[in-house]
Amino acid sequence: MAEKWKTSITYIEPNKILLRGYRVDELMGKITFPEAVYLALRGELPSEGEGKVIDAILVSSVDHGITAPSTLVARTLATTGVPLTTALAGGVSAVNRFHGGAIEGCMRYLYDAAKEMDGGKSATEAAADLLERLKKDGVRMPGFGHRVHTCDPRSVKLFQIAEEAGVKGKFTDLAGAVEAQLEIGLGKKLPINVDGAIAVVLCEMGFPPETGNAFFAMSRIVGMTAHYFEEISRYKPMRRIDQENWEYDGPQERKPGGR
Amino acid sequence: MAEKWKTSITYIEPNKILLRGYRVDELMGKITFPEAVYLALRGELPSEGEGKVIDAILVSSVDHGITAPSTLVARTLATTGVPLTTALAGGVSAVNRFHGGAIEGCMRYLYDAAKEMDGGKSATEAAADLLERLKKDGVRMPGFGHRVHTCDPRSVKLFQIAEEAGVKGKFTDLAGAVEAQLEIGLGKKLPINVDGAIAVVLCEMGFPPETGNAFFAMSRIVGMTAHYFEEISRYKPMRRIDQENWEYDGPQERKPGGR
Amino acid sequence: MAEKWKTSITYIEPNKILLRGYRVDELMGKITFPEAVYLALRGELPSEGEGKVIDAILVSSVDHGITAPSTLVARTLATTGVPLTTALAGGVSAVNRFHGGAIEGCMRYLYDAAKEMDGGKSATEAAADLLERLKKDGVRMPGFGHRVHTCDPRSVKLFQIAEEAGVKGKFTDLAGAVEAQLEIGLGKKLPINVDGAIAVVLCEMGFPPETGNAFFAMSRIVGMTAHYFEEISRYKPMRRIDQENWEYDGPQERKPGGR
Amino acid sequence: MAEKWKTSITYIEPNKILLRGYRVDELMGKITFPEAVYLALRGELPSEGEGKVIDAILVSSVDHGITAPSTLVARTLATTGVPLTTALAGGVSAVNRFHGGAIEGCMRYLYDAAKEMDGGKSATEAAADLLERLKKDGVRMPGFGHRVHTCDPRSVKLFQIAEEAGVKGKFTDLAGAVEAQLEIGLGKKLPINVDGAIAVVLCEMGFPPETGNAFFAMSRIVGMTAHYFEEISRYKPMRRIDQENWEYDGPQERKPGGR
Repeated sequence: MAEKWKTSITYIEPNKILLRGYRVDELMGKITFPEAVYLALRGELPSEGEGKVIDAILVSSVDHGITAPSTLVARTLATTGVPLTTALAGGVSAVNRFHGGAIEGCMRYLYDAAKEMDGGKSATEAAADLLERLKKDGVRMPGFGHRVHTCDPRSVKLFQIAEEAGVKGKFTDLAGAVEAQLEIGLGKKLPINVDGAIAVVLCEMGFPPETGNAFFAMSRIVGMTAHYFEEISRYKPMRRIDQENWEYDGPQERKPGGR
Repeated sequence: MAEKWKTSITYIEPNKILLRGYRVDELMGKITFPEAVYLALRGELPSEGEGKVIDAILVSSVDHGITAPSTLVARTLATTGVPLTTALAGGVSAVNRFHGGAIEGCMRYLYDAAKEMDGGKSATEAAADLLERLKKDGVRMPGFGHRVHTCDPRSVKLFQIAEEAGVKGKFTDLAGAVEAQLEIGLGKKLPINVDGAIAVVLCEMGFPPETGNAFFAMSRIVGMTAHYFEEISRYKPMRRIDQENWEYDGPQERKPGGR
Repeated sequence: MAEKWKTSITYIEPNKILLRGYRVDELMGKITFPEAVYLALRGELPSEGEGKVIDAILVSSVDHGITAPSTLVARTLATTGVPLTTALAGGVSAVNRFHGGAIEGCMRYLYDAAKEMDGGKSATEAAADLLERLKKDGVRMPGFGHRVHTCDPRSVKLFQIAEEAGVKGKFTDLAGAVEAQLEIGLGKKLPINVDGAIAVVLCEMGFPPETGNAFFAMSRIVGMTAHYFEEISRYKPMRRIDQENWEYDGPQERKPGGR
Repeated sequence: MAEKWKTSITYIEPNKILLRGYRVDELMGKITFPEAVYLALRGELPSEGEGKVIDAILVSSVDHGITAPSTLVARTLATTGVPLTTALAGGVSAVNRFHGGAIEGCMRYLYDAAKEMDGGKSATEAAADLLERLKKDGVRMPGFGHRVHTCDPRSVKLFQIAEEAGVKGKFTDLAGAVEAQLEIGLGKKLPINVDGAIAVVLCEMGFPPETGNAFFAMSRIVGMTAHYFEEISRYKPMRRIDQENWEYDGPQERKPGGR
């Protein structure tokens, strides 16, 4: 008999399920889903502030309309008659290097540069060195700039929430220094986008880069579900889903109000 | 030029993203992710109670270990060297008729039976009729019974949270009646499992069955991420991932404490 | 120890691989790939004619350009930076009820109608009954009609090759009868498309409907590979892939010549 | 209006489909599927010998039983009730770096080493340099060695067929030199496996590495279809599919005979 392999995530026995040692039924109603995300991935419960930051991350990327490739994929699959989860799977797989996947790439570079700060460099020096290395390799810094937004409102808000939650440190400094250096190098602003901002706060909380893209996937799977349902409810199968020639007919801008 | 097609989910302009009419950056920090799920799928903000029920749903199904087919798929893909989101995609696609997908099937039958209650039948009559119809078609009622658990602790807790939140009505009655009728018919208890309980509370909140399986996918994608990371961190590629011959080496049972 | 489960497809021992009893290395160079498809799925080697019909099926559906949803999915995935096989996976999953998947649906209806022919009905009667049943259920007969082609040249050629190969019988008659009945019912021709023609010849060879869509997937995966490579070779990542606003710049029409 | 983007693969007009300039209906029955693969990917028809080599590649990898991760994924998906093509998609996505994907990796290294041969080095020198570079990077040479086979019979046969077809040149020499150098370095044989052999002959024919893994996917999708059908035909849903505890109950070893 081969040696048993080991896993430390979940323990199961009849009528008992332990996630990282906690009974799932005792977690329900006691911790929030964003806190459960932290627990599952890191093995321990987060601080209250960390839970709020993850919550904001997950809200930030729920949807960005049909122009996102993941959503186009999910909605095109919907029109061919696949089950919901097949459409979601296609869309999730689109979260990669150039789409959402900027999170993982950005985290890797930030961790590298942070090591140089640990070795005594300033954030500005570490940022300048990083950008020079990327330039030499002909690679763009992931997580900065956006096809549509010149100043991504989601990034601004995420940093504000993180600051209030005490999730702010050298990675935030580093991101600011990268922005400043990019502006010097390019002669124009290339502000951090939502992927970049998510990468920064995930680094502040110590998440490994290998798990970074999951946050985008967890969030965007919600929007993809909405698009799947809208597609099969409003349209006939095998429709050509045009990313240009559409128009929004939802509610006008409104405020979340007294909540 | 073809007529523009319509979508009511998201409106985008530079530096502004509206989800169902609300600015995403204004939602961040103001509503929770589970509330954002409701908003994206239903078009309006939920009540506070509904938000809590969705939160509990999402916590309930985060992970169930390697014996879940979706997790085996994600972890087997991890061992072949695919990117994280490719592994998650494979796992998400496994949420189907017989796995997680019980949610959708169960919701369909509950909505059908509830129509008969609207027509004047009691919950018991509607449940008995439903089970008879299924028997005739040679189909099992989805959402009842479990491979491992004789009394799924997640179902018990979810109903309790839903009751406290005021999310309780005819679908809950119907589920109880189905359990009772199943026990009469089979001579043994076949209690509602977590998929079934999720189906019931989603019906109480008015979600369409077509979106039901997404809740399982949103929740389980978290556990699959944990398994992906554990696999690539602890093991070499191309490992045979045995669903029997493993052992849990995580923390002993513990309590979430004073939170 | 649980009882061993059984599989009759492949036997492996060091330096020996048997496919349905034949050494794979002895099959290489001796049977064609289309014959290997038959062997893998049916368990026995096909006749020479059957091998040729499968070959023609696989050639028929290699590509249909960017307007096919599977190809749009694969190409959109390519632009996000996924590995080749992730893009192919997304595209393969699009082969479903309304796209390529017409093969499976069409086969099911043809087998049903053929049973009635076995019970004494003529092809015309069986076709008329089938279409009436579908009409009652509000379902369209899959495999007939095409978005683009009024007379699909691939169907015509496939039937010709099948006839020469002796792969022609009651399903071919039935398909003709369905075409005739559709014309009477609709007052216009709705000729069999390539999915329908593939369904007919697969029925003639006795393939189960559950395997029908695989033939489309096996064939179209080739075109999707070509599109993936063209996309990453000719274009930058995160391109909006428009299904309308493109133009063909490949070779002019030419003939396969003296082959 | 944005400029039209260009594609050179397929031209469509009503009742006419051109693949790389050839009418698909004229190709059917005239060229084989393996020749169509070459045409789609390379833009021109192959020589007769090249067609035969591709045919042998596609036959070589049709199936390798349940122990292949792609097949475990496809079969596990089958047991959850997904449609055929969703199961195939999961399996196709498993063809990656460490599984089947050795083809792409091996091709990249062979093309690199061949450039050094063009610069005047012998095959032995180029092979030795390549292995030294890989050793320095802590990377194994992909395409050599196998979990099960000490001398992969499929590789032997593929090289034989390629030689007969005149598809033999510097990449074949290089592969031999790599084998010899590996034996010197390791003190034991680590013979080329089927992925490696496929990589070599694809290089001889000039295929780009980016398309290499598609050949494995095209071939293995056949075996995955057979496994999907066997699973849903022989077993109940939600079965635990054990990669150890199974047994072959197909035909005994037999010969393809007088074909």
